[in-house]
Amino acid sequence: MRRHPENPIICPTDVPPSAPGLRVRGAFNPGAVRVGEEVILLLRVAEDCAPEQGLARLPVVRTDEEAPRVEILEIPLDDPEVRRKDTRGIVWRGRDYLSTLSHLRLARSSDGVHFEIDTRPFLLPADDSERFGVEDARIVALEGRYWINYTAVSPDGWATALASTTDFQRVERHGLIFTVQNKDVAIFPRRIDGRFHALHRPDNQGFGRPSIWYADSPDLLHWGNHRCILRPRDTRWEAAKIGGGAPCIETPAGWLQIYHGKGEGQRYSLWTALLDRDEPWRVLKRARRPFLEPEAPYETEGFFGGVVFTNGVVTWDDGRVFVYYGAADQCVGLLETSVDELLASLEA
Amino acid sequence: MRRHPENPIICPTDVPPSAPGLRVRGAFNPGAVRVGEEVILLLRVAEDCAPEQGLARLPVVRTDEEAPRVEILEIPLDDPEVRRKDTRGIVWRGRDYLSTLSHLRLARSSDGVHFEIDTRPFLLPADDSERFGVEDARIVALEGRYWINYTAVSPDGWATALASTTDFQRVERHGLIFTVQNKDVAIFPRRIDGRFHALHRPDNQGFGRPSIWYADSPDLLHWGNHRCILRPRDTRWEAAKIGGGAPCIETPAGWLQIYHGKGEGQRYSLWTALLDRDEPWRVLKRARRPFLEPEAPYETEGFFGGVVFTNGVVTWDDGRVFVYYGAADQCVGLLETSVDELLASLEA
Repeated sequence: MRRHPENPIICPTDVPPSAPGLRVRGAFNPGAVRVGEEVILLLRVAEDCAPEQGLARLPVVRTDEEAPRVEILEIPLDDPEVRRKDTRGIVWRGRDYLSTLSHLRLARSSDGVHFEIDTRPFLLPADDSERFGVEDARIVALEGRYWINYTAVSPDGWATALASTTDFQRVERHGLIFTVQNKDVAIFPRRIDGRFHALHRPDNQGFGRPSIWYADSPDLLHWGNHRCILRPRDTRWEAAKIGGGAPCIETPAGWLQIYHGKGEGQRYSLWTALLDRDEPWRVLKRARRPFLEPEAPYETEGFFGGVVFTNGVVTWDDGRVFVYYGAADQCVGLLETSVDELLASLEA
Repeated sequence: MRRHPENPIICPTDVPPSAPGLRVRGAFNPGAVRVGEEVILLLRVAEDCAPEQGLARLPVVRTDEEAPRVEILEIPLDDPEVRRKDTRGIVWRGRDYLSTLSHLRLARSSDGVHFEIDTRPFLLPADDSERFGVEDARIVALEGRYWINYTAVSPDGWATALASTTDFQRVERHGLIFTVQNKDVAIFPRRIDGRFHALHRPDNQGFGRPSIWYADSPDLLHWGNHRCILRPRDTRWEAAKIGGGAPCIETPAGWLQIYHGKGEGQRYSLWTALLDRDEPWRVLKRARRPFLEPEAPYETEGFFGGVVFTNGVVTWDDGRVFVYYGAADQCVGLLETSVDELLASLEA
């Protein structure tokens, strides 16, 4: 395994803002898929507004026109109806506004390393269930379509929505497939025993610790048969919670899942687990050491230092694996590895 | 509307314990359904163990035999591996044990007021996903079966499981239909537009306040198309959260839903809302005053005083409605009312 020497391969400065006056603060946590000869990423792009004296300036999505678009709301800070909250946003006229808003942006590459980034959003929040942003896409190619699940954030919490496309130009939306508080959804890339399958991560904070669950579905839209299959261990790497990563990679030994652990000091690391090929709710193996921890400067420092997080992995025909990962909630790193190396990490 | 003069109609002392040495502390929150000439209730029966000097005595479910059964685990309190927790239980050898365990108990009546209570459990926890108890059944008659959803409690949190029966003797289990943390699930009593429908209540604590959501399903087992349809209002009755009650009652005006609000001082009250007949995610009306608040002594005092909570309602052919409700998390009250009175409460 090696970090690509050109890491971070995508930085916020590489991404044009989606509207005048906005600043790109993060370009990270990409979903990834191979489409023909290309690798396509759907980046999470987080934007805020340049500050101006005496004004709160907030990115908001207009959904009342033909196509949604981001515009800047300016509120005088001496407005008697402004209640300051914290650096994350304000309350104005009884409604919450966040200082940062995420959308999904498409980037494409022929070598998987050098990306051309679209100038406009691929997916913007479309309704109130996404009012605080769309984040962390996972992409899976399944029966003739690309299925994109992503985190939809709203004043009600964070939930998981589904969209699909055949050409990465026109997108169809399918609503919320997992309700609040549930994210880190990784759909399996084929049917097993006639059904669709996924990992998901409901928030059970205050009861247990957030764990990885399994569910199945007849149609990708409705999910049930929920089972808790992987719980955080009492280690410094998983002390807070764990969650699924990119869609599983199929290997002769089973489904290879890359998941993240959040440990002491809010530090994230990446791990492997192996699930049964026919009964993917059965955990066959689980690594005892992470295969990636925040160590490089762009991982340890940044918007949220100490985070490596993946929701996008690409497998090449020769067994190489490109793990795209968000570093410090700010930029994109690339880890070059292989199916064999990832399987070996299960035994370490 | 009137509270039945014989209230509370069921008390813990009316219920025989499920095993020697257990004490029934609560018989409350019944699911309800008309079956032929009878009313059937599925009571939530909460049991603990009589105390003995120097011992922690805890009800646990054995699931390793042919049929699950409750037995008493005795642990010397001076055992070095006992960590006291609080009055709700202990930790022993790294595992949680609760002092109280709930199961579902069947009761039947020909007049809806006087009930004969089974001596043995109708539904006991069957596996680890229910290890801390089964609670708060909702029953709906649908296409030839009675569908029973209930809260399954485990160290991972509380989730919603589904079971079904045709005769209230043999029960089939269908697993978790909503994952943690999600309960207060009320399935609609018929298909609409070819699909099944339900209200549910995911916990979004820390983000928004727990609200009533809508979902639909092709098969009762897999749920999707989640929408948040009723949020708590800033009143003293709904300050903490709201949640769905019994399955909706169909009226010419729409689907009548009885829900609960949890307000200031952890006080619960009962409310009406009216949902569109064809698009039940549309809220047509919502009461501005509760139709039931804790006022009678058996409602204001008890295991958890200040609670009225319903998950079981029976409608008679003449329009009368029997609202069975848990009072103070301890006993069962009966409110006699009618569809007309409940609809009128929407206008108050």
